[in-house]
Amino acid sequence: MVSEQIENLIILLSKLPGLGPRSARRAVLELLKRRDTFGISLIAALKDALDNSKICSSCGNLDTLDPCQLCEDPKRDSSLICVVEDIADLWALERARVFNGSYHVLGGVLSALDGVGPDQLNISSLMQRVIEENVKEVILATSATVDGQTTAHYLIDRFTGMDVELTELAHGVPVGGELDYLDDGTLGAALKDRRQV
Amino acid sequence: MVSEQIENLIILLSKLPGLGPRSARRAVLELLKRRDTFGISLIAALKDALDNSKICSSCGNLDTLDPCQLCEDPKRDSSLICVVEDIADLWALERARVFNGSYHVLGGVLSALDGVGPDQLNISSLMQRVIEENVKEVILATSATVDGQTTAHYLIDRFTGMDVELTELAHGVPVGGELDYLDDGTLGAALKDRRQV
Repeated sequence: MVSEQIENLIILLSKLPGLGPRSARRAVLELLKRRDTFGISLIAALKDALDNSKICSSCGNLDTLDPCQLCEDPKRDSSLICVVEDIADLWALERARVFNGSYHVLGGVLSALDGVGPDQLNISSLMQRVIEENVKEVILATSATVDGQTTAHYLIDRFTGMDVELTELAHGVPVGGELDYLDDGTLGAALKDRRQV
Repeated sequence: MVSEQIENLIILLSKLPGLGPRSARRAVLELLKRRDTFGISLIAALKDALDNSKICSSCGNLDTLDPCQLCEDPKRDSSLICVVEDIADLWALERARVFNGSYHVLGGVLSALDGVGPDQLNISSLMQRVIEENVKEVILATSATVDGQTTAHYLIDRFTGMDVELTELAHGVPVGGELDYLDDGTLGAALKDRRQV
């Protein structure tokens, strides 16, 4: 017999990716037990993030500014656009500190099953950027899944005839990965693209 | 390059049990992307739960009322107290709808390693309830862990000489459990306490 307020909070929290009903219950107990040090500050942080975050109208990143800090950074190469599915992918690349160009977040992948067509993704804004911003190279960094690759091929079609270089991420053995645990596709790609040492 | 507000929120969310840094990032993205339908309502639900929840001064349950609905319910048997470690355990028993007595939440277990002694647990309030509320039976439903059993034995010592029946939960094969996956201790207990069919 949990009160309605607590039940409500459990239901909402269990909708977060990574949390199910059981972990949501544990999370709620933790928040209520450490009300002053944890609960209150989570409310403040949530409010702060929601109030101060917007989607960058140029690249689709989440930031406090629009255009975002990445788009506005003069030290970044704006003639190079890395196309990613989701903001999480952009964050992953930024954490790795391996890329110094600009980004474009599609907001998903083409999927017949989920009814996602080209109009639901930020594709026309990508085409516009490539035409207007003198872009020299577009890196198609969608996932190596069926839908991700379908989306990449669709983009390759759309860019046909335009004066822009299209590239994709290399396939191969993950750094730190053990051969024994890799799937056949990855092993095949790694072998095919082998390099002289 | 994530904004300070978003970073803050990720750090706080990753402190919830069950969420690590990666799932906290995914959760934050979900909250920000579905700002109006999800983010705002989570803030409201959190505020509502924090503002309206208190610890029951009698049994230690979390509720909007003090004493809680369980303690105040005239249909529940107040001469029977089930002692649990945590509010989550109380919720688990309530979900199972198998118990119609009252509860007492200890708020943890005795642990030499974590420096938790009897004074840090709600033990004196339990003794007081047993004396004042004409309690006939106390079910020691602490976990079947070393610390849980130490706590149960400590309580058995404290109740020595008092006119109250002490019981503990039965050990055995979990309903739906496969023998192959059970540990030796459980199998041994299930065999020792075997019943005629």
